Amino acid sequence: MKAVILAAGLGRRMRSFKPKPLVNLFGFPIIEHTIRKLKDHEIIVVYHLKEIAEFIKRKFPNVKLIYNPNPKRENGYSLYLAKKYIDGDFLLLMADHYYAEEFFSFNDSFDKTMLFVSEKCYGDEKEATKVKVNNGRILSIGKNLKKYEYFDTGFFYCKKEIFDCIEKIKKDKIKLSDVITELSKRGEVGYKIINDFWMDIDTKKELKNAEKAIEKSLIKESDGYISRYINRKISAKITKFIARFDFVTPNMITFFSFLIGLLSAFFFFNRNPIAGGILAQVSSVIDGCDGELARIKNMGSSFGSVFDSLLDRCADLLIVLGMLFAYGFTTLSIVAFFFASSGSILVSYVWHLTKIRFYPACRDARLFMIMIGGLLSWFSKEFLLYTMLLIGALAHFGIWWKMYRFYKEISKKAHTLQG
Amino acid sequence: MKAVILAAGLGRRMRSFKPKPLVNLFGFPIIEHTIRKLKDHEIIVVYHLKEIAEFIKRKFPNVKLIYNPNPKRENGYSLYLAKKYIDGDFLLLMADHYYAEEFFSFNDSFDKTMLFVSEKCYGDEKEATKVKVNNGRILSIGKNLKKYEYFDTGFFYCKKEIFDCIEKIKKDKIKLSDVITELSKRGEVGYKIINDFWMDIDTKKELKNAEKAIEKSLIKESDGYISRYINRKISAKITKFIARFDFVTPNMITFFSFLIGLLSAFFFFNRNPIAGGILAQVSSVIDGCDGELARIKNMGSSFGSVFDSLLDRCADLLIVLGMLFAYGFTTLSIVAFFFASSGSILVSYVWHLTKIRFYPACRDARLFMIMIGGLLSWFSKEFLLYTMLLIGALAHFGIWWKMYRFYKEISKKAHTLQG
Repeated sequence: MKAVILAAGLGRRMRSFKPKPLVNLFGFPIIEHTIRKLKDHEIIVVYHLKEIAEFIKRKFPNVKLIYNPNPKRENGYSLYLAKKYIDGDFLLLMADHYYAEEFFSFNDSFDKTMLFVSEKCYGDEKEATKVKVNNGRILSIGKNLKKYEYFDTGFFYCKKEIFDCIEKIKKDKIKLSDVITELSKRGEVGYKIINDFWMDIDTKKELKNAEKAIEKSLIKESDGYISRYINRKISAKITKFIARFDFVTPNMITFFSFLIGLLSAFFFFNRNPIAGGILAQVSSVIDGCDGELARIKNMGSSFGSVFDSLLDRCADLLIVLGMLFAYGFTTLSIVAFFFASSGSILVSYVWHLTKIRFYPACRDARLFMIMIGGLLSWFSKEFLLYTMLLIGALAHFGIWWKMYRFYKEISKKAHTLQG
Repeated sequence: MKAVILAAGLGRRMRSFKPKPLVNLFGFPIIEHTIRKLKDHEIIVVYHLKEIAEFIKRKFPNVKLIYNPNPKRENGYSLYLAKKYIDGDFLLLMADHYYAEEFFSFNDSFDKTMLFVSEKCYGDEKEATKVKVNNGRILSIGKNLKKYEYFDTGFFYCKKEIFDCIEKIKKDKIKLSDVITELSKRGEVGYKIINDFWMDIDTKKELKNAEKAIEKSLIKESDGYISRYINRKISAKITKFIARFDFVTPNMITFFSFLIGLLSAFFFFNRNPIAGGILAQVSSVIDGCDGELARIKNMGSSFGSVFDSLLDRCADLLIVLGMLFAYGFTTLSIVAFFFASSGSILVSYVWHLTKIRFYPACRDARLFMIMIGGLLSWFSKEFLLYTMLLIGALAHFGIWWKMYRFYKEISKKAHTLQG
């Protein structure tokens, strides 16, 4: 499907030397966020300022550029300029808005033009366009509505018939909201409610809030406690810094995190468990960045996630082996090593098979315990042994706990199917 | 969908004290194979002999039984007796036929009655019902056709309108082939070609051939060489024997195979690598039976396959640990152990992630090598060390080979999508 991004606005409110769509949001321009999320679409950008055209030509040469010589004629006119490149249904978006992932995840095709609305306004409510609906139909749209249910997110699924409607408006200034109002009078507009973050970024404060929201969105539901409350706080900052460099790929970060893991193992081998422990935790933090970068830049791949999983397991093994060397060989330490290393791999193996998590044995928790164990070894090296035993116990318990949960889940499903 | 099994035939040709549908095929009655494969359907069986009714009542109390007092009126009449229980499309099958898995794996619904045909006749070609088609239509059906393209497999997808057609046949004997011929004259029958094994089991020789075909079907495409050419030959025999016992579940066999694996590890620990090696291979053979039983009795479950994978990994680890103890602790043997044990788990881990196999490092090959190593240790215990090193080398090579193949596969897919 084609996607039209309107970038010909004049952006009067934010004090910035840059045109609004080029303002840096979490490491790269607002419009780049949208272009990246539209990876599988043919993108058309309607622009006025030459900086925007230059930026897009340089970074996304496949994007079709259309010049709007007269931005004062408003965004409906901008859209109309794309008419001849459109042959079917298309998406319509605003270059100065940030839209979170859920906006792009629908797979339906609709039989009328759809306005994507939100129950929540994340930015300045006064400036937002409100939407009043009734019985599935849009009644009115405007900034100054007194009674309204939703906010216009500036994200549309359009039928190409929208251009006929624009042609009939014999005004100099054509606002998109007028076009939608006109279409809705004829019952040709529906709306779809999206419950994810979006923002019309107009001020520095809104920009900051959008960055906070992006940072929050990097926390995955499946994150363990250490990851959620410690690692992500740091890794998000690193990711934001890295995101500005276009040559850095998620797989590079995966490999870099693995190298730090190797270094941790190396320090353990060399009987320096304090450095080894700290590096294990550093590696754990950086291990979060690959996925974060992949998500915000839409660079995820199935190879990347397999590569990440495998290198994580290799690093886990070597770090625990390093702990064994740091502690020294005794029957108990060999058993503890076997217990911890097999548990570390198997608990992740069972996760892949069952998709059930046991947080105290997740990688974030294990590497955190290794750091604590490494630091405590300053008092007594026995702590290294205890750490291996603890990791082994948690992991092996976790494996069978997951199997039990999985069995229950399967039985419940079978029951539901029969019942 | 409902499924009608016609079991009221008189079975005149096979010399057996049992009614034909109850003849033992690979451990349990022919009709039970079909009933099990129809697990998700509401099954109706039309019978004449009370042994059949007794068997089904005892084993499958949910199956609806319909008595046909007059089997001489032929199978079209048998089908007609099911009329009042049918409310939509239904499957129609013969109780004395064996149908392999592909027959049951279609998900379409058809807009006319479909005859499932085969290009190959696996039984007595003279006795088979032949089908002549032209331009997607059935021209004629019968035993004595001179020219024909396909064989009638006795498996149908029926519209309930078939009963109207039967009603119009004012004869005492109503053959199903006549009904189908009648329907096809009106263009109300299509056909679907199935390329999997099926057999109308009439003679002892055919029974034997069917058992051979089932045995062959137990070999999976993904089986390694040891599994395919050695293990399956034995495990199929065991499975055939076990299949007669209804209390035995695939998960029990999984656990039993694990216990043999534990016993193997135990013998290695006790410095008896010959017994350990042999038991490792025995465990590997029995490890095939759980899947085989699950397939032929349609008892597979996602829990079962996860349970099997996890116990396999645990046994692998313990057996290799046993080898380390049997050999004794040296720096090299500890490295070899680490190499072999981590490789064994990771190679399987990467299989789950990529679904790419590297046969020389599959479990069947690894356990076979352990047997050979165990036997050779009679000459010199160094062979235990060599075995661990060989397994480690193959597994670790296999891991990266899989990753490389996976990367190529992904790149190719992306290329195809773009091109």
